[in-house]
Amino acid sequence: MVKIGIIKMGNLGMSQVITLIQDEMAAREGITVRVFGTGAKMGLAEALDTENFKQWQADFVIIISPNATAPGPTAVLEAWKNVPCIVISDGPKKKEARDALEQQGFGYIILPVDPLIGAKREFLDPVEMVVFNADVMKVLSICGVVRLLQEELDKITEQLGFQKSGKKLELPHIFAKPEKCIQHAGFSNPYAKAKALAALHIVEKVAQVNYPVCFTLKNLDQICLTAAAGHEIMGAAANLATQAREIEKSNDTVFRQSHAKNGILLTKTKLYEKPK
Amino acid sequence: MVKIGIIKMGNLGMSQVITLIQDEMAAREGITVRVFGTGAKMGLAEALDTENFKQWQADFVIIISPNATAPGPTAVLEAWKNVPCIVISDGPKKKEARDALEQQGFGYIILPVDPLIGAKREFLDPVEMVVFNADVMKVLSICGVVRLLQEELDKITEQLGFQKSGKKLELPHIFAKPEKCIQHAGFSNPYAKAKALAALHIVEKVAQVNYPVCFTLKNLDQICLTAAAGHEIMGAAANLATQAREIEKSNDTVFRQSHAKNGILLTKTKLYEKPK
Amino acid sequence: MVKIGIIKMGNLGMSQVITLIQDEMAAREGITVRVFGTGAKMGLAEALDTENFKQWQADFVIIISPNATAPGPTAVLEAWKNVPCIVISDGPKKKEARDALEQQGFGYIILPVDPLIGAKREFLDPVEMVVFNADVMKVLSICGVVRLLQEELDKITEQLGFQKSGKKLELPHIFAKPEKCIQHAGFSNPYAKAKALAALHIVEKVAQVNYPVCFTLKNLDQICLTAAAGHEIMGAAANLATQAREIEKSNDTVFRQSHAKNGILLTKTKLYEKPK
Amino acid sequence: MVKIGIIKMGNLGMSQVITLIQDEMAAREGITVRVFGTGAKMGLAEALDTENFKQWQADFVIIISPNATAPGPTAVLEAWKNVPCIVISDGPKKKEARDALEQQGFGYIILPVDPLIGAKREFLDPVEMVVFNADVMKVLSICGVVRLLQEELDKITEQLGFQKSGKKLELPHIFAKPEKCIQHAGFSNPYAKAKALAALHIVEKVAQVNYPVCFTLKNLDQICLTAAAGHEIMGAAANLATQAREIEKSNDTVFRQSHAKNGILLTKTKLYEKPK
Amino acid sequence: MVKIGIIKMGNLGMSQVITLIQDEMAAREGITVRVFGTGAKMGLAEALDTENFKQWQADFVIIISPNATAPGPTAVLEAWKNVPCIVISDGPKKKEARDALEQQGFGYIILPVDPLIGAKREFLDPVEMVVFNADVMKVLSICGVVRLLQEELDKITEQLGFQKSGKKLELPHIFAKPEKCIQHAGFSNPYAKAKALAALHIVEKVAQVNYPVCFTLKNLDQICLTAAAGHEIMGAAANLATQAREIEKSNDTVFRQSHAKNGILLTKTKLYEKPK
Amino acid sequence: MVKIGIIKMGNLGMSQVITLIQDEMAAREGITVRVFGTGAKMGLAEALDTENFKQWQADFVIIISPNATAPGPTAVLEAWKNVPCIVISDGPKKKEARDALEQQGFGYIILPVDPLIGAKREFLDPVEMVVFNADVMKVLSICGVVRLLQEELDKITEQLGFQKSGKKLELPHIFAKPEKCIQHAGFSNPYAKAKALAALHIVEKVAQVNYPVCFTLKNLDQICLTAAAGHEIMGAAANLATQAREIEKSNDTVFRQSHAKNGILLTKTKLYEKPK
Repeated sequence: MVKIGIIKMGNLGMSQVITLIQDEMAAREGITVRVFGTGAKMGLAEALDTENFKQWQADFVIIISPNATAPGPTAVLEAWKNVPCIVISDGPKKKEARDALEQQGFGYIILPVDPLIGAKREFLDPVEMVVFNADVMKVLSICGVVRLLQEELDKITEQLGFQKSGKKLELPHIFAKPEKCIQHAGFSNPYAKAKALAALHIVEKVAQVNYPVCFTLKNLDQICLTAAAGHEIMGAAANLATQAREIEKSNDTVFRQSHAKNGILLTKTKLYEKPK
Repeated sequence: MVKIGIIKMGNLGMSQVITLIQDEMAAREGITVRVFGTGAKMGLAEALDTENFKQWQADFVIIISPNATAPGPTAVLEAWKNVPCIVISDGPKKKEARDALEQQGFGYIILPVDPLIGAKREFLDPVEMVVFNADVMKVLSICGVVRLLQEELDKITEQLGFQKSGKKLELPHIFAKPEKCIQHAGFSNPYAKAKALAALHIVEKVAQVNYPVCFTLKNLDQICLTAAAGHEIMGAAANLATQAREIEKSNDTVFRQSHAKNGILLTKTKLYEKPK
Repeated sequence: MVKIGIIKMGNLGMSQVITLIQDEMAAREGITVRVFGTGAKMGLAEALDTENFKQWQADFVIIISPNATAPGPTAVLEAWKNVPCIVISDGPKKKEARDALEQQGFGYIILPVDPLIGAKREFLDPVEMVVFNADVMKVLSICGVVRLLQEELDKITEQLGFQKSGKKLELPHIFAKPEKCIQHAGFSNPYAKAKALAALHIVEKVAQVNYPVCFTLKNLDQICLTAAAGHEIMGAAANLATQAREIEKSNDTVFRQSHAKNGILLTKTKLYEKPK
Repeated sequence: MVKIGIIKMGNLGMSQVITLIQDEMAAREGITVRVFGTGAKMGLAEALDTENFKQWQADFVIIISPNATAPGPTAVLEAWKNVPCIVISDGPKKKEARDALEQQGFGYIILPVDPLIGAKREFLDPVEMVVFNADVMKVLSICGVVRLLQEELDKITEQLGFQKSGKKLELPHIFAKPEKCIQHAGFSNPYAKAKALAALHIVEKVAQVNYPVCFTLKNLDQICLTAAAGHEIMGAAANLATQAREIEKSNDTVFRQSHAKNGILLTKTKLYEKPK
Repeated sequence: MVKIGIIKMGNLGMSQVITLIQDEMAAREGITVRVFGTGAKMGLAEALDTENFKQWQADFVIIISPNATAPGPTAVLEAWKNVPCIVISDGPKKKEARDALEQQGFGYIILPVDPLIGAKREFLDPVEMVVFNADVMKVLSICGVVRLLQEELDKITEQLGFQKSGKKLELPHIFAKPEKCIQHAGFSNPYAKAKALAALHIVEKVAQVNYPVCFTLKNLDQICLTAAAGHEIMGAAANLATQAREIEKSNDTVFRQSHAKNGILLTKTKLYEKPK
Repeated sequence: MVKIGIIKMGNLGMSQVITLIQDEMAAREGITVRVFGTGAKMGLAEALDTENFKQWQADFVIIISPNATAPGPTAVLEAWKNVPCIVISDGPKKKEARDALEQQGFGYIILPVDPLIGAKREFLDPVEMVVFNADVMKVLSICGVVRLLQEELDKITEQLGFQKSGKKLELPHIFAKPEKCIQHAGFSNPYAKAKALAALHIVEKVAQVNYPVCFTLKNLDQICLTAAAGHEIMGAAANLATQAREIEKSNDTVFRQSHAKNGILLTKTKLYEKPK
């Protein structure tokens, strides 16, 4: 039984489903998942509290939060550095910072395609927040990010399954740019793939537009207009992603990769095909 | 400081964001949130493990899972019955079962509009699962469910904030049918409201179609076709919800209700309006 | 020459085209069709008047109306019980009532997928009525219901053609649930089929939502909002049906089944194919 | 009680609903409707058979068929010239022919916007036929044609209601070009009106494209391609009409005009308004 | 080096890109293009000025303007009749007028599918003008008109490349009706082709609707409503064209025909195919 | 009479219509426009040839080409530096380079929102080129760029009209980022404005994605996939722009600004309003 611990601080689009993607049917044997989360906040108090989760003695730990180099996440990493950990975050975007993570022994999957929300009270309320996250999840799922994570996490789980003790765990070190993500999306039709790749590129723009909303704009109208534009960009990306999947449906070529009871990945492409 | 504990077992559409909707900006003072989750599984082993979360001494606890009367969730409720708890689930749909929850002292918000997924390995993989959940989140957010929860949870938090000890906490007992949810959606245009209400009704159909997928169908083709139909129904509901919100945008009447720093709900309707 | 009589009382979506589907080109030899209709009303006076239509001495009679067990239709059935008849209606939905029809010698095709309209003066005018019926016709045609009827009626016609006198006419007894209808739709692409099946399921919801509009709601706002929602659900179903057909077009796999001059069914699938 | 007789030969888009538009609720007092139809065919045998319908002694008769100057309809007109009649058809398009109808004492509403279908066995089957008619009905209803007919027929009914005997019945003589129809559509938003007017103009093109399909093209590929193009044009018109209505919904300005019990036209514009 | 001169007076949809379609990559060797234009105006003064362009001594000249028989274009033709010229215009639509052009030695490609804009100051401003032209370009490109021109112009260029002096240049004489244009569009899927053909037919309607806007209507409301309808029709055509191309993308059958460095036309159909 | 010369080298989206936007009705008095173009190419030979255009003695000259600092355009600027010129281009994006233009006496409007096309023979053919440019024109027109240019060019024309000789012409120096462009778009509805602003931001991404297509990628599949993605991004931007305009239509608030005969800008907002 592989014990997978997940620490969630704050929220990424990917945070919504990270706890589920290794066991989408709730029927996988051989793994147990426990999650400790701190809600929307990701400060030092929250970081400290993660210590309690150590008692569960996870075999490896997924730490997911925005901005892995902010003080809170940094404190968490410091606290957990002796446990095999993989960091999932939207940054750091600089290679040196990622290399530093690796040198400290962390695995990481950095997702520049998981975009910053337009987080200003003048615009964002819980409803808008969920609408935005739904669009993000459409892109992350259809365009290969969910599958990239699924595969990388399954690789770790598999290593642990075979060799609980023994040689060192190999952890991924991935900066998941659009070109990387799209390779995992499993498209058959090249225009569907192009639309999905376009969606990923557009998502990178979301963060650029929302950054001043969150950090520099002061004028009410500008904040609201720019945040609304940022979220419209996100919606346009989700639409492209949806179109891409509709094309695959129209060709009966939706690639699916589900977990067998024993955790092995089964694949199928035609709807009426048996996964194997 | 109100301490809000959240226990997540298995997954509802609403599970994705329940941890965020009281603090969408991660800037609210006076509350602390901690989450304990068991991933996709919701068996007895998972239920037992929730005991460890008691050490945090939450002021009140949200227990969210599918099917609140399944053995796992029932065991959790048994374990937590001495703590003020609110149960969020897609069932029980029978009034007697809900009354029993109330008599045991639990608050509840039962969401027949949070639909069962087509959970068969022959169809569902992590990507399809996230695509489905994204559609669900669109409906739940736009059509009033997120706001209903936000308001009810804030009411509890407010009571705790004022009267940490003292008179008994009033907990909600709500069976959130479409007609109930739509009242919280804040639509100005009646056709937008009708579209959103339509989306909620359609979502109820999703569960009806997916039920045999999960529990009775045996034939591969039937499973795949029916599950695909169930997910198409969900997509149609999400489209209607999106249309509804687009109408409100076109009239500049998107109702927004965000939390001030002190947790008070601020409202605004025009995009350039200051929330107050 | 087979003489086909059609009695129309009130209106179903299917009523619009029942007179045409055995002779869509107006070029079929060997059949003659005459129709007697009573407009929107379906009371006892209208039922009595159908007697006059007996003079034409049809070989078999199609009786189409909503709610075949309402007083008017019941009176018609009583009047026509000595003529080979097939009843087409949206009910009875209870098996016993359908069995009773069969025992009286009637054939029937009951269509739970032909939905109740939101018939309240506060909402419905002739324009809205036609808009709704257009959506219904999209679903009925694309999702297999029209073809089911075409085939069943042709079977009766064929029997009459060969054996005007002689052994007893075999009449169909069909409760046309979504799963039954979709088998007749002739889809090649399984996702198109899933969308069409989804449309049929959604249509069943239309009737559920419109029922209180017609019979129980009293409040003006509730009537209008609910009826509008019912019609939006219908529109969503029509959209899904249309998408399904568009997929088949995109694959050049639209199945077509037209009548040759002599009434034989010709089929084709590719657009440039000759029907045979 | 005004007795309204309707004779249907062959099929126009408008034929589908002509029997319903004066009594959309099936609740109007003071009128009785009876229909005699001949199915898809409109030959001389069918024309002769309409004589039997005289026994019902309608106060006025609506004769609806394609091409009112074809032999069948001409024979019907000849047979019924002593009864107050109004002819509804897609032609004659020449003024002299319409004047001749008027001189014979017939009222008429000629609808060049009710388009010819692509009636070739190589393309048209019952399903395609219904799909096309559904699109036609969308345009006819939303763009003012249904309401034009409703109003003109109600005017005749009203005259008969007041003065069963007495001065001569005034019958309409209308060539319903797009510009005429759109005046009855009741749009508030001028761009919605422009879209609806555009739809009507496009529909005129449908007939032009389908004409060679029905009458001159011989080559299989050309027939199929051209008919498919004709039906795509129809679909584009229906889309525009639908967009037009969606705009009115988004402004809560859908004009509705329903019949009171006594047949008076009630109007309303806002969804929650009481009709009056 | 073939010297291609282009004279542009006024504006057609095709004017926007005529200078580019023989050298879309700006990398073709063996041709030089120079353009002389007179902006929006096409009067006699403008016509006279084209004389200056003679000094460049083009090997052949493309004269593009609306209405080739208006005084301005006529004067240009008169001035250039001794140079090999091809006229591209939306008219003359009468065969005699086109024959006259041919007898004067001109080649021509007349495009009834390049529609008249709704040119009234009450409606048209630069923004609306560009929006309309963008829609026109969608139809012209996707539905075969651009490729028809590309091929015909390349034929002339090729003749000049081989035989600068010598036997007489063969110039095209084409009246590019929808049926002609669509042959050049290169569709694989017949429904995509039907949609594109539908778009071309609809475009012909645009000119019919916009004609009274430009030349006969006097009433402000009528001008604005009719022009808006004309432009909506154009938009509907562009949508159909776009749908047609999306179908080809969904089948990975987008036909492409680019110029090699030496001007030879390379073709490919699958996205990842090498053009050859 | 102000003489406006336009030199076009190569192609921007804006090149398509620059000759028309000061005289969209071809009815403006007081200006004459002549255009000299070099087709798709923009090399030194083409630059030299522009000298001939000097004979026309324009009062001011618009030089439009991609990449104003490439050798060809630079040579043109050198040749024309003694004439009042305004440069319209998609670059230079660096401020120093723009300042250098200003110091040389040139006006400029640099449009980072006029995106680089995916110019590789493996992907781009004349049809794809026009499809892309149509999308670009949708964004440029709806999102304020066309109007920005219209207004700036009219300002120059106006100065020349009043003071042909005399004080120095004031030329614009504008780097037209999305935030600048959107101010000229004239939106009433803030969400429409946000969608249009989103479109402009997305367009900036197009250039980023297409840059490696044009200049660095070598692998056939990568070129085709990336170019296709770049063009899909462009299409998504055009869709957002179109949605934005549809919202304004739905509110009857489309701002229009047309030229009176004398060149004055008339404005109107409601469709039936008289421009003034």
